Amino acid sequence: MAFNPNEHQHLRYNPLKDEWLLVSPHRALRPWSGQTEKAAVEKTPRFDPKNPLCPGVTRASGLVTPNYESTYVFSNDFPALLEDGPEPEASDDELFQTRSARGNCKVMCYHPHSDVYLSSLSTSEVVDVVNEWIKQTEELGKKYLWVQVFENRGQMMGCSNPHPHCQIWSSTFLPNEARVKDANLRKYYQKHGRPLLQDYASKELKKQERIVTENEEWVVVVPYWAVWPFETMVLPKRQIQRFPDADSIQREALAKILQVLVAKYDNLFKCNFPYSMGWHGAPTGEQLKEDQSHWTFHGLYYPPLLRSATVKKFMVGYEMLAQSQRDLTAEKAAAMLRDQSNTRFKSE
Amino acid sequence: MAFNPNEHQHLRYNPLKDEWLLVSPHRALRPWSGQTEKAAVEKTPRFDPKNPLCPGVTRASGLVTPNYESTYVFSNDFPALLEDGPEPEASDDELFQTRSARGNCKVMCYHPHSDVYLSSLSTSEVVDVVNEWIKQTEELGKKYLWVQVFENRGQMMGCSNPHPHCQIWSSTFLPNEARVKDANLRKYYQKHGRPLLQDYASKELKKQERIVTENEEWVVVVPYWAVWPFETMVLPKRQIQRFPDADSIQREALAKILQVLVAKYDNLFKCNFPYSMGWHGAPTGEQLKEDQSHWTFHGLYYPPLLRSATVKKFMVGYEMLAQSQRDLTAEKAAAMLRDQSNTRFKSE
Ligand SMILES: O=P(O)(O)O[C@H]1O[C@H](CO)[C@@H](O)[C@H](O)[C@H]1O
Ligand SMILES: O=P(O)(O)O[C@H]1O[C@H](CO)[C@@H](O)[C@H](O)[C@H]1O
Repeated sequence: MAFNPNEHQHLRYNPLKDEWLLVSPHRALRPWSGQTEKAAVEKTPRFDPKNPLCPGVTRASGLVTPNYESTYVFSNDFPALLEDGPEPEASDDELFQTRSARGNCKVMCYHPHSDVYLSSLSTSEVVDVVNEWIKQTEELGKKYLWVQVFENRGQMMGCSNPHPHCQIWSSTFLPNEARVKDANLRKYYQKHGRPLLQDYASKELKKQERIVTENEEWVVVVPYWAVWPFETMVLPKRQIQRFPDADSIQREALAKILQVLVAKYDNLFKCNFPYSMGWHGAPTGEQLKEDQSHWTFHGLYYPPLLRSATVKKFMVGYEMLAQSQRDLTAEKAAAMLRDQSNTRFKSE
Repeated sequence: MAFNPNEHQHLRYNPLKDEWLLVSPHRALRPWSGQTEKAAVEKTPRFDPKNPLCPGVTRASGLVTPNYESTYVFSNDFPALLEDGPEPEASDDELFQTRSARGNCKVMCYHPHSDVYLSSLSTSEVVDVVNEWIKQTEELGKKYLWVQVFENRGQMMGCSNPHPHCQIWSSTFLPNEARVKDANLRKYYQKHGRPLLQDYASKELKKQERIVTENEEWVVVVPYWAVWPFETMVLPKRQIQRFPDADSIQREALAKILQVLVAKYDNLFKCNFPYSMGWHGAPTGEQLKEDQSHWTFHGLYYPPLLRSATVKKFMVGYEMLAQSQRDLTAEKAAAMLRDQSNTRFKSE
């Protein structure tokens, strides 16, 4: 029998993490009788006088959220990273090593209304979101080595506030994911003289097997090594290293492709598709002046759902102790998303 | 102000993964208004004629589960790893690498009754479980490079069957977690001439800051670098490299300490504390004859709960895209578990 990646077990390599993934397509028929989640289909009221992210509402800190009209950024009332604090001493024991951590945590509202989605906003409103992401990355990047813009969408992803928003955590250290990616991108660049993700994007564009959507400036793929069932990566067609390098044409095209991507996600299981997403670009701060030719700016979406609005993929025992595993192949997932409409379904 | 790890932000190093963790103890006061889980408090009937793991019930495969009286092991009806299948060809493109994966997935019931816990069984019944784990590891290890025994306990951890059981997935490849750990253990051994985890265990025994429980043969600690709020590691006091190396004294002492650990977990939030757990020892198969002096056999427990039976820690946006983060320190978590009784609370 000939090997068919959509039918037969195999491992796939993730060159960004230097890790392997177990793919078990033959297991897709497995029935599911385990835990189901609450489907994310509830309608959120446009304005909730108790929601601190709504214009005019008083937050936990006592500060009042102003009557903002576009995006709005403020300091997280319960930051995981503070700008200052006592510093640990260097440890002389390699099994008990501590290092200093400093940083900053911000919250960014996308829009004054709570009942909107990226796909229901006008493109110019989404361009405002893109521009604010860039402005924050640029400003915080002057001081911090890494600026992580991320959105937890939906209760399933630990998001406790239904108002459309994201977070921005900046740090004096390079977080693990960034450090490992930086090293692997550098290794590839040293070997080939070209950025890994630029090569990857052009190969995917040629293969046309895992593409979810594309426009003149951006392409969205389910990466060959995707771990989450409907994981995607947003890649630029014109090489840029950091978010602020995007010109106005790329910014507008990015707004448009994100609207399409989120609409497709929402259409797949007719819900507000939960995910964590975020942006990765070359390190900033003290590395702003260093050569970063190995970097390609890109976005990452990690959605937990597997079969329906209520059945997620559990990354548990084997995945935690041994290796990530998936049943649905990246190619099938890409085809399923590709087949969805570019406009969001209408909620009842 | 002097640095206090229980109050001030810092990073901690995990020498097994070569990764850092962000600790934000100042954030522990954060209120939680997000998703809550279903508390795992339901009573399971002793026998359910529809549960394929109960003695005498017919499984999906049509095979009948025999009237077993102790442990019972059978092949998973929906295995993620098959013994045979077409093999992928080696890829000539380093961005699209595929490798062959072969293996075997088994299910192991701990006891014929569905309504028991490790802590409610007699010690000799838990010794039977330990001996079966060892027998499986030994048999499968003759053929496979890695034998992963793991248990997903509770619906929150993707477990779809309430009958007390675990799984055993064996593979022709070394999974990521094993490969990285093997490399880091080796590096330490080459530098110090002693196994990392043996040094770690004796230092923890001296420090007495993160110990949950201990007996003559084993110690349970919340590792200095623990990522999950109540994560623990089970370490031998007498060095062994693999599960089958444990002598009868170690086996019985292991049974006893696991009973205590699970009772403490269950007592903490008065529920069937969900977790994924499993065992790591030196690689097997073709590596059975190689020197494995750098390895120490050990157990790992990864429980998701944070504040109560219904509030878990979400490993989402920042954690997925940047770095693991925790609020509660390892030292506080260890003290909370240590304070629990060694006998399980009585369910109503
Ligand atoms: O026990 P099951 O139902 O086979 O499956 C469970 O454990 C597996 C191994 O950790 C995971 O891959 C699945 O996502 C999870 O639902
Ligand atoms: O958005 P929140 O409530 O601050 O917190 C959420 O995102 C954080 C960053 O990914 C996680 O550390 C928390 O576990 C999660 O609940």
